[in-house]
Amino acid sequence: MYTLWYWPTIPGRGEFIRLPLEAAGIDYEDCARTRGVDALVADMKRHGGRGPFAPPYLEYDGLVIAQVATILAFLGTQHGLAPSRLGDRYWLTQVQLTIADCVTEVHNVHHPVEPGAYYADQQTEAARAAHQFRETRLPKFLAYLEGVATANAGDWVIDNRWTYADTSIFQLVEGLRYMFPKRMAAIEQEYPGVIAIRDQVAALPELRAYLKSDRRLPFNQDGIFRHYPELDAA
Amino acid sequence: MYTLWYWPTIPGRGEFIRLPLEAAGIDYEDCARTRGVDALVADMKRHGGRGPFAPPYLEYDGLVIAQVATILAFLGTQHGLAPSRLGDRYWLTQVQLTIADCVTEVHNVHHPVEPGAYYADQQTEAARAAHQFRETRLPKFLAYLEGVATANAGDWVIDNRWTYADTSIFQLVEGLRYMFPKRMAAIEQEYPGVIAIRDQVAALPELRAYLKSDRRLPFNQDGIFRHYPELDAA
Repeated sequence: MYTLWYWPTIPGRGEFIRLPLEAAGIDYEDCARTRGVDALVADMKRHGGRGPFAPPYLEYDGLVIAQVATILAFLGTQHGLAPSRLGDRYWLTQVQLTIADCVTEVHNVHHPVEPGAYYADQQTEAARAAHQFRETRLPKFLAYLEGVATANAGDWVIDNRWTYADTSIFQLVEGLRYMFPKRMAAIEQEYPGVIAIRDQVAALPELRAYLKSDRRLPFNQDGIFRHYPELDAA
Repeated sequence: MYTLWYWPTIPGRGEFIRLPLEAAGIDYEDCARTRGVDALVADMKRHGGRGPFAPPYLEYDGLVIAQVATILAFLGTQHGLAPSRLGDRYWLTQVQLTIADCVTEVHNVHHPVEPGAYYADQQTEAARAAHQFRETRLPKFLAYLEGVATANAGDWVIDNRWTYADTSIFQLVEGLRYMFPKRMAAIEQEYPGVIAIRDQVAALPELRAYLKSDRRLPFNQDGIFRHYPELDAA
C-alpha cells in the first residue's frame, strides 16, 4: 500500500495525486488525514537529505517520491496509467509540468509578493496579478490544453483511455471554475476539448463515487485555488 | 544531432540544458542563436497541439520535448547522464524540479505582479518580494540542496560522477550570485556541500572550455537572474 503525505485540509497539489489513485482503485493511506498534521511535519524531517522539499510525497517500499509530476510519472509506470511508447511518456510529462506551472501561477495570483504572508497583506497587488492572469495567462494555458486535447484523435490526451494528464486537466478546470467563476463562464466554451476531458473524467465510475465521498476535500480559502470575488471578473 | 530551441540572448532556462550537453560533449545546434529569434517563433507554431508551451525545447528524431526537467530526464536516459537505478532517477527528477521551482520564484522576485510588464512598473512590489525571498525562501532552497549534497557519500549528488542535477546546482548558484551578490556572500558558506558541487562542475574539463567560450551567454538584465542592486542586501 502507498502512503501519501499532504496537508490534510486542502485539495491543493495533493489532489492531483489522489485522483489517479482513486480512479485506478489503488490502495493508499492519506497519512496526514488519518494521523494528523503533526505526523506530516514529523515525517518530513525523518528522511534527512533524501527527503522531500515539500508535500505532496508518496512512500512505497523505501522510496520517497516528491514533486507531483514525478509521483505521477512513477504511478503511471507502475500501474499502466501512462502510455507505453516512450515519446508519449515524455509528452505526458510535459503536459503535466505545464499544468503544474499554471497551478503555481494561480497561487501567485493571491500571494504575489509574499508567499509567507496573508492575502490581506497583499490584496492590492493580488488584484493586479489577477487581472493579468485572467486576461493573458489563463487563455494561454487553456489554449495550450485545447491543443493538447484536439491533437489526439481519441477522446483523451493520449490514445483511447484516461491517463494522469486527464485527471489533472479535470482538477485544473475544477479549481479554475472555483477561483474564477465569472471568467471561466465567459471563456470556457472556447475550449470544448478541455471541457470534454473534464466531463469524461467526472463520469469515470470510480471517480463519480469518490467525488461524492468525504474523501474528496472541497476547495476552500486556505488552498491554492481560492475564491476571492474581488479577483474575478468576466 | 539535437536541435535546441531557446531565446537567443539570455542564459535563462536554456542554460540548464546547454550545460550537460556541453559537459558530455553531445552535438547540438542552438537554433535560435544560429537562425535568429524569428525562426524560434515560427518553429513554436509548427508543431500544433503536440508542440511546446514555451522554450526551451529539444528536437530529436521527430520527438519534441519541452520542460527543462523532462529534457534532462530524456538526455540522462539517452546518454548515461542519470543513474541507472530507478529510485535514483526519481530522486534526481525531484531535485531538478525543486531547482526549477526556485528558478520560477527567482523570476517572480523581479516580476511579482505582472509577468508581462516591465520591472519598472512593479519595482515597489519587487522590493517586498525580494526581501522575503532573500530572508526565507533562498535559505530554505539552499538548505534543501545542502541536504541533497551531503546525503550522498560521494562528491556529487548521486554516486561518484556528475549528473544533470550537479550542472543545475552550478547554474543556480551562479545565477544567485549574479542576482544577490551581497546576500550570497553573507550566507553561502553555510552550504559548503552546495558550493563544492558548484566548484567541481566549474572544473570539469569540457565545461572549463565552454565557460570561457562565447557560447556561454552572460547573465544580463533581460533574463531570469537579474542584478538590480536595490533587490539585494546582506
